[in-house]
Amino acid sequence: ANRARMLISCPDRPGIVAAVSQFLYEHGANIVSSDQYTMNPDGGMFFIRFEFDLQDLDRELPKLQEDFVRVADRFEMKWHIFRASRKKRIAIFVSKEDHCLLELLWQWQAGDLDAEIAMVISNHPDMRQLVESFGIPYHHIPVTPETKAEAERLQLEKVHEGKVDLIVLARYMQIITPRFIEYFPNRIINIHHSFLPAFVGGKPYQQAYDRGVKIIGATAHYVTEELDGGPIIEQDVQRVSHRDDVASLKRIGRNIERTVLARAVKWHLEDRIIVFQNKTVVFN
Amino acid sequence: ANRARMLISCPDRPGIVAAVSQFLYEHGANIVSSDQYTMNPDGGMFFIRFEFDLQDLDRELPKLQEDFVRVADRFEMKWHIFRASRKKRIAIFVSKEDHCLLELLWQWQAGDLDAEIAMVISNHPDMRQLVESFGIPYHHIPVTPETKAEAERLQLEKVHEGKVDLIVLARYMQIITPRFIEYFPNRIINIHHSFLPAFVGGKPYQQAYDRGVKIIGATAHYVTEELDGGPIIEQDVQRVSHRDDVASLKRIGRNIERTVLARAVKWHLEDRIIVFQNKTVVFN
Amino acid sequence: ANRARMLISCPDRPGIVAAVSQFLYEHGANIVSSDQYTMNPDGGMFFIRFEFDLQDLDRELPKLQEDFVRVADRFEMKWHIFRASRKKRIAIFVSKEDHCLLELLWQWQAGDLDAEIAMVISNHPDMRQLVESFGIPYHHIPVTPETKAEAERLQLEKVHEGKVDLIVLARYMQIITPRFIEYFPNRIINIHHSFLPAFVGGKPYQQAYDRGVKIIGATAHYVTEELDGGPIIEQDVQRVSHRDDVASLKRIGRNIERTVLARAVKWHLEDRIIVFQNKTVVFN
Amino acid sequence: ANRARMLISCPDRPGIVAAVSQFLYEHGANIVSSDQYTMNPDGGMFFIRFEFDLQDLDRELPKLQEDFVRVADRFEMKWHIFRASRKKRIAIFVSKEDHCLLELLWQWQAGDLDAEIAMVISNHPDMRQLVESFGIPYHHIPVTPETKAEAERLQLEKVHEGKVDLIVLARYMQIITPRFIEYFPNRIINIHHSFLPAFVGGKPYQQAYDRGVKIIGATAHYVTEELDGGPIIEQDVQRVSHRDDVASLKRIGRNIERTVLARAVKWHLEDRIIVFQNKTVVFN
Repeated sequence: ANRARMLISCPDRPGIVAAVSQFLYEHGANIVSSDQYTMNPDGGMFFIRFEFDLQDLDRELPKLQEDFVRVADRFEMKWHIFRASRKKRIAIFVSKEDHCLLELLWQWQAGDLDAEIAMVISNHPDMRQLVESFGIPYHHIPVTPETKAEAERLQLEKVHEGKVDLIVLARYMQIITPRFIEYFPNRIINIHHSFLPAFVGGKPYQQAYDRGVKIIGATAHYVTEELDGGPIIEQDVQRVSHRDDVASLKRIGRNIERTVLARAVKWHLEDRIIVFQNKTVVFN
Repeated sequence: ANRARMLISCPDRPGIVAAVSQFLYEHGANIVSSDQYTMNPDGGMFFIRFEFDLQDLDRELPKLQEDFVRVADRFEMKWHIFRASRKKRIAIFVSKEDHCLLELLWQWQAGDLDAEIAMVISNHPDMRQLVESFGIPYHHIPVTPETKAEAERLQLEKVHEGKVDLIVLARYMQIITPRFIEYFPNRIINIHHSFLPAFVGGKPYQQAYDRGVKIIGATAHYVTEELDGGPIIEQDVQRVSHRDDVASLKRIGRNIERTVLARAVKWHLEDRIIVFQNKTVVFN
Repeated sequence: ANRARMLISCPDRPGIVAAVSQFLYEHGANIVSSDQYTMNPDGGMFFIRFEFDLQDLDRELPKLQEDFVRVADRFEMKWHIFRASRKKRIAIFVSKEDHCLLELLWQWQAGDLDAEIAMVISNHPDMRQLVESFGIPYHHIPVTPETKAEAERLQLEKVHEGKVDLIVLARYMQIITPRFIEYFPNRIINIHHSFLPAFVGGKPYQQAYDRGVKIIGATAHYVTEELDGGPIIEQDVQRVSHRDDVASLKRIGRNIERTVLARAVKWHLEDRIIVFQNKTVVFN
Repeated sequence: ANRARMLISCPDRPGIVAAVSQFLYEHGANIVSSDQYTMNPDGGMFFIRFEFDLQDLDRELPKLQEDFVRVADRFEMKWHIFRASRKKRIAIFVSKEDHCLLELLWQWQAGDLDAEIAMVISNHPDMRQLVESFGIPYHHIPVTPETKAEAERLQLEKVHEGKVDLIVLARYMQIITPRFIEYFPNRIINIHHSFLPAFVGGKPYQQAYDRGVKIIGATAHYVTEELDGGPIIEQDVQRVSHRDDVASLKRIGRNIERTVLARAVKWHLEDRIIVFQNKTVVFN
């Protein structure tokens, strides 16, 4: 309950680790783990993640944050502190394929995803029963070319009402508009069913079949305005052969997709990801 | 010494396996292994590979081939029989990176590549000593924009003199012209240092770094007129992270490239590959 | 509906493929795929799997089987023909861990496991609701040292009543007795949560942690009298590090276990496995 | 040239990171990377690795080390500082298989292994020419049951003369005695050609074949008195099938062995490994 996580990005410069760890020590925090990365030792960016324990965290954190501003200013830091016990609230968007949704629900039920699943939103009614059997609200918001704007308004209303921190597109087959993305910068995770940047866009398994690749993959990334172009969080692959037709690629791919998406979501929930210039630093 | 391999492609139809295996049996051949693939059971293409042993192969093969024409005609087969003991002759083309060449030389020396390495051709003089220490002729044929046509003429002369069956581009950084390719259809293997179709063209590791992928790969393919667009034979990948800069990606990639290329060459040498519509069937 | 599969084992000898494919051709069967393996070309065992289509299979099969006896006798074959449309009936045994069961249920529901799940049997009551929500009967048969024999009698009664073809131990944490195994030779698949033969027996993740391995795995195998010693069907692994404690290994391992078990079950259902001398030939 | 690396183990306690990074900062060192691991947040061991740059390292280091004693004492640290520019000296021991040796030589030549290869010692004369062509001394020290003690004495003499820091057993097929090991605690790396702890001892590929595993592997570990029982540094695996006989397993295995061994050696050279209770912490 007294565990916190701190993410910092700043220009590299001598003394950063010393300053922060000294600061934490003086405030009574015990560093449980730290992980850092310097993009380029000669004048690049510096990224660091701390996990620390602090007695009476809830009461002490505001003071610690206030005091940290001085350190942050000195090093021009972008920083954030997260309380580990404060579960993030997720909205899962889904269309007709259920495997990614199911994986998230199972892992959540098994205690492997440390989050609240605030709601599932779908443009189809199909998965209502499944989702509600987990005690999770299900909002069926149909999307047609004519109602797209209204549907998005409704979606935003729901996620704002639900105080959602993270949106997970678990094979949600609709384009998210820039206006929507603006509300959740680096807080919408999508699973694309190919090894990006190969096979951007629609029907990636058909594309993979047509090209005759020997390995297929899936990619979890943050959603940006560029289709399938956002910062990649995680990828994985599996070997296939000429014997695999499109149906077989889809079947194999489902297993990759769900695993990759669940890993990416887990890392986000554990505050392990920093985005910089359309790429991710993942401290795992 | 009496081992042969047979590759057949034809439209699918009942009775093919029966006809061929009956034919082989009646000619005294013992089928050691067979592997087949039907692209689409309802009227697609059919591919099969046999390995068989035949007493006195060298003497008996011409008769068997002559007799097989009748079977082949009946089923509209494209077919070829290879004697396993007749080693294919390879020309390796290389520029300045030596890892793929070295891998092929080592595997060849270890007895893992069943071929004659007839020559190494390079647009640079750097690897002469290394190659000649293996007892292999080294032809340094410089390539400049002005001399490109003449260089190609020289290369063709060398490979024809050397009775070369297979050309391996082991990180040869020059474009092969369509005219050259025509002489060696599906008999030029290139290693591309990315997971195709991602990162076609130059500097794929830089491209991979810029995109922030979490896995990199390499692709061995037959060379066709379309740059990096030929039939894929083999691919493999390895996990990387934000910590890997371009130099590190190259270092990791070298290991993937050499392994993938050596596997593809091995399969070609063992007559395991059939090309159909810009894709490969690999019986392995 | 007219698809059948044939598995044959016999001593290697010339003419087997010819004889069988000729036989099938003459009986009007069209071979859709064949896969063979000769253990040792000089006098070893020979294994082959055919898939074929036969008009009016249900009516024609008895005659074909009767006629095949002559071929089989000539080559001393052990053989079996399976109708693809005749779904195998599975009993899943489970204790308290649900991930392997869930994976099977989900793949079954998604149409990826071509079987009837006849029942789930458990020594715990915990998963009744889950299982019954899939419309599958759930038999809670408690097992204690005193009631073990009686429990086994009950289990056998249930699986016999249910005309079960295959038993899947989906993390069933009880020893199966030789007497029980005798009823289902090479028809009980177990998932062991280690990369066998490493870490036989109990608490394999603890063992793996104590030894400090850098990769963990799981193994699906047919159950024989020797604990964790039966023919291995499939294995897979995943990389771990010093950072993974036992809980983390278990979490990572769950994903490997369920994938490996589902693959093994799928191959069994598709009649792709031949057991010979405590090893498997898997035609996939 | 001014880069140093620091490895520390000590009982976990608040303030360690702060104390060390403060210390380094005050001595003018710039931390380039740090990586830490706490075995068990509630009272376990703590491990940390720093890379730092220090102006005039050669001149300043003695003073810094002297001053650090006070910090080290306070936290009961085991610690060591390595100058990155001070190349470690390696002796490679080899018998008749050359693939692991070749890999090390090639990576060394390519600049991927930052070390001096001081010598190669072999119980066979076979690889003298190869090794000497790299400009590396080759000592042929035959080993027979009668001369074993004398051979070991000679080996020790050679490695002491050569000021060797690390011994790499690159498929050296002789047992190293406890007396020899004592001179190089956690400084002898062996490659075992199986996925330990499976298939300890001789002929692991034969053992793997007999057991019918579907994946084979290799393990690099520090040598201790217990045969194949020392701390595991790195492992890797590759998929095989029933088609792979022992010769094929060996061929596939060679590729795994050389890759795994080279990785382990590289990590040792970069001071990334801490051994604790027969396990390794690898900061990579």
